[in-house]
Amino acid sequence: MSEGHHLSTTDARARAAGLRLAAFDVDGTLTDGRLLFSDDGRELKSFDVHDGQGLKLLAGIGIEIALITARTSPLVARRAADLGIRHVIQGSHDKGAALSALCASLRIAPQAAAFMGDDLPDLAAMAVAGFCVAPANAHAWVSQRVDWLTQARGGAGAVREFCDFVIEAQGRSADVLARFAPA
Amino acid sequence: MSEGHHLSTTDARARAAGLRLAAFDVDGTLTDGRLLFSDDGRELKSFDVHDGQGLKLLAGIGIEIALITARTSPLVARRAADLGIRHVIQGSHDKGAALSALCASLRIAPQAAAFMGDDLPDLAAMAVAGFCVAPANAHAWVSQRVDWLTQARGGAGAVREFCDFVIEAQGRSADVLARFAPA
Amino acid sequence: MSEGHHLSTTDARARAAGLRLAAFDVDGTLTDGRLLFSDDGRELKSFDVHDGQGLKLLAGIGIEIALITARTSPLVARRAADLGIRHVIQGSHDKGAALSALCASLRIAPQAAAFMGDDLPDLAAMAVAGFCVAPANAHAWVSQRVDWLTQARGGAGAVREFCDFVIEAQGRSADVLARFAPA
Amino acid sequence: MSEGHHLSTTDARARAAGLRLAAFDVDGTLTDGRLLFSDDGRELKSFDVHDGQGLKLLAGIGIEIALITARTSPLVARRAADLGIRHVIQGSHDKGAALSALCASLRIAPQAAAFMGDDLPDLAAMAVAGFCVAPANAHAWVSQRVDWLTQARGGAGAVREFCDFVIEAQGRSADVLARFAPA
Repeated sequence: MSEGHHLSTTDARARAAGLRLAAFDVDGTLTDGRLLFSDDGRELKSFDVHDGQGLKLLAGIGIEIALITARTSPLVARRAADLGIRHVIQGSHDKGAALSALCASLRIAPQAAAFMGDDLPDLAAMAVAGFCVAPANAHAWVSQRVDWLTQARGGAGAVREFCDFVIEAQGRSADVLARFAPA
Repeated sequence: MSEGHHLSTTDARARAAGLRLAAFDVDGTLTDGRLLFSDDGRELKSFDVHDGQGLKLLAGIGIEIALITARTSPLVARRAADLGIRHVIQGSHDKGAALSALCASLRIAPQAAAFMGDDLPDLAAMAVAGFCVAPANAHAWVSQRVDWLTQARGGAGAVREFCDFVIEAQGRSADVLARFAPA
Repeated sequence: MSEGHHLSTTDARARAAGLRLAAFDVDGTLTDGRLLFSDDGRELKSFDVHDGQGLKLLAGIGIEIALITARTSPLVARRAADLGIRHVIQGSHDKGAALSALCASLRIAPQAAAFMGDDLPDLAAMAVAGFCVAPANAHAWVSQRVDWLTQARGGAGAVREFCDFVIEAQGRSADVLARFAPA
Repeated sequence: MSEGHHLSTTDARARAAGLRLAAFDVDGTLTDGRLLFSDDGRELKSFDVHDGQGLKLLAGIGIEIALITARTSPLVARRAADLGIRHVIQGSHDKGAALSALCASLRIAPQAAAFMGDDLPDLAAMAVAGFCVAPANAHAWVSQRVDWLTQARGGAGAVREFCDFVIEAQGRSADVLARFAPA
């Protein structure tokens, strides 16, 4: 994380090429930041189907996937289970400590970890991660400090854009496409 | 399906003129791709009322309508029932095989089938269908491979735009309009 | 209703000046056209708070308000009750007949009735009403046939824009504003 | 509140520098104005996660936060509780009286109170407050009368933009950022 300038595409691709772990904030990053409440006490969030496909593809090339969020909701656990995401840390009040601990337990150097988030509580994790990314709709204090910004907004393809970028950087696009597109 | 160029409007219209079956992906095509989850375990999707009207008009001129989706939800069955759609294939892990089997059971040549989808799992069905269409918001690897792209986004009129295009190509626009607009 | 050209603002204002009844389609006009379904069989729609305020203001200057919709849902009845709308016709398969009958029962000439809608089933009511309006997102076959188009989309202020236009045309803007803005 | 011109940024900042209370309308200001109804009688609203973060930061620098709304829903009380907002006035038919009473009970001069709203019922509170703000999507009669307009829309960052503006005007941005960004 450094203030005030983003990496060139070449340098961002170099960081992405060595990634082994990709960790994501939830609200505003994997969702559009809307917290939907009902008058009988329910809470709802909306996820993007393209983002989910991207996370499955990223896991499929061997990247560890994690969600780290300050809020707590069973629906996040459910969405993670749908997508086969093993590492789900909710109620985290120090996302930097959470990411450090996860890296240690997976024996992955923090330099090989990416973190994608959109607001101030994500900065602590960005101080740990080697590649810091924000969606187009991130708060200005965050978007000024990340290495790379997606063009898409949270909950509307930002995570898929990141996944595609990493898959390309690791030279796996042709493999991935071949599983879907008959020759 | 061919990579890298779309059909001219004239050629797309010629394909649409001979259609007898139109099959659609659900998430991202008939919806905006949002998967809404609640903390008591419910899942919701939103469909577009204009798209529904278009599917009823398309069935009304004798085109078979099908939904083919990898996910499974009773709400898709309900929306299909609302619209009188007879062919609903959920939990499909090979949309190409599903479309081939449907064509065989209906005795319709795959060349007379259209498939509309927005992400990688739809490519298998696009290898079978004679006319391949994607909404404006499709993943780049899909939009580069289809015959025709709608200007509207999934869940916001893309399906209606396709239905209108087929009704026009089959020379039925005046008939359809006459049912609604008093002379 | 006439095909292919809209009224000038002056002529539209003249029609609005004499209105005594304003009838509205629901899906796509009072909502954004999204039909939200949950997997336990619930259906949801979203209304715009500005539209609701506009309908209350319009009723406040003595215009009769009606909803006429082909679908049927208790939530439409509830929203109408919230807003004090007395005339709610659901499950209507002939909106023209419904509007004619309503005009007769209220002893209002159809020329003094407006109808606002966005898709083909609304054309029958537009053949009856003296002032036909569509939101910006209406289907092309409808928007080409109305007298006036709002700049706002359905479910996002189109109804409020219509209400403000009528209140202005009837010379009641200052009265309405005075109830809210302390002198 | 004055009609027809907004404050310069310098003058708006001067008003914000002395604020001790910030009161907000709910629908259209803290939400996108959508009222979502389900057919089993539930009502839902969506709040923005960035707005919530902003309100917590604003309270953290010592500003009193209040919600004043004409509608009544337990979900507003829940969202307020989530954010630690102590002053929640629902079912208010005279927002001016409500704001005056709140100022009196908190022993805060109305000149040191801001009110943010988007439609006609908010004008009464704006006649009381010393700094009147509206989101980008406010009704024209309101946006013409406020001191300052946000660039963001209600339910999509308008409240956060206001909070950031006040934090900056009170000279507390560096303090706030330091709590999140490791040196």
